[in-house]
Amino acid sequence: MKTPSSLQGLIDALRALPGVGPKSAQRMAYHLLQHDRDGAGRLGAALNQALERIEHCERCNNFSETPQCELCSSQRRDATLLCVVETPADLLMMEQSQAYRGLYFVLLGRLSPLDGIGPRELHADRLLARAADGVVVETIMATNFTVEGEATAHYLGEMLRARGVRVSRIARGVPVGGELEYVDSGTLAQAVIERRVVV
Amino acid sequence: MKTPSSLQGLIDALRALPGVGPKSAQRMAYHLLQHDRDGAGRLGAALNQALERIEHCERCNNFSETPQCELCSSQRRDATLLCVVETPADLLMMEQSQAYRGLYFVLLGRLSPLDGIGPRELHADRLLARAADGVVVETIMATNFTVEGEATAHYLGEMLRARGVRVSRIARGVPVGGELEYVDSGTLAQAVIERRVVV
Repeated sequence: MKTPSSLQGLIDALRALPGVGPKSAQRMAYHLLQHDRDGAGRLGAALNQALERIEHCERCNNFSETPQCELCSSQRRDATLLCVVETPADLLMMEQSQAYRGLYFVLLGRLSPLDGIGPRELHADRLLARAADGVVVETIMATNFTVEGEATAHYLGEMLRARGVRVSRIARGVPVGGELEYVDSGTLAQAVIERRVVV
Repeated sequence: MKTPSSLQGLIDALRALPGVGPKSAQRMAYHLLQHDRDGAGRLGAALNQALERIEHCERCNNFSETPQCELCSSQRRDATLLCVVETPADLLMMEQSQAYRGLYFVLLGRLSPLDGIGPRELHADRLLARAADGVVVETIMATNFTVEGEATAHYLGEMLRARGVRVSRIARGVPVGGELEYVDSGTLAQAVIERRVVV
């Protein structure tokens, strides 16, 4: 039996979703068509609306419906702190931690020379101008602790320091709730090296 | 920070997909907007197209873009066999097994009195008319081996038999590749009861 072409088209299109393989895509398509046509209609409309409205904030690169995002426009954030993250999703995680009240700069990537992603692609010039604008006092590197994320933090940090900007890096260590027995040795080594005096 | 409303709308809409919770929906939305806007556009279009074109075959209830599906219209299928399945997804699995060359009847559900699904909702009258049309020689019940699926097979089977239709049920037993040590005892018990003489 040949699957009807619009059904096959939907199955193929669902594979654009991260973590969705051929089998899941098939299950999703059949589920939507049999049990949730309303939901499928809403999803189609939501996709179109988000694509139409969501752009990147011209100041921090975060997702925004307005030229400047809500964070950059806010008077209640501490403009002396600038946090550098790789992606809008990372920014969201930072916000959900509720531990940071400053502003952001989203790189929209990480240094990855093999993929052709260099400082230019990460808007390093705009980051420099922003960090050295006289308002920002400290730039916090919050890129991932992967090889690329570390390289990005190191490279951009050196560049910023060379222009007299104060740079910090979020702490490495044992996760909250983590048990030493199950933490990898690299993390534990860092936690020992970066230990803090108890006051 | 408040998420832009069209982004939040997309995250909420993605939850219509089976197996997608709030965290996955968020990851999917951010992924599409940052890395695959083309894919998101294709998905939106595919959803709309499928909703517009896919209906149920008027003969077997399978998904179809035409009033009668490709299977029901085919001259190469064995019209003396009628296989009863719960959903279009089950029909697809039967087709993928390549063990069946007859026609189908899709119930679009299973008996579930608590959810208000009785014989009427399963189009039992149409199934009866179809099975007793003089062409069909055998009706194969291929509903799931769940409590509801078994009840459905039993109820519909009795109804068909009362009208002189020959009814069979697909076999229960140890799955292909299955090891006795890991098969549940109910399945193993059925495999013993329904054992076949080796010829």
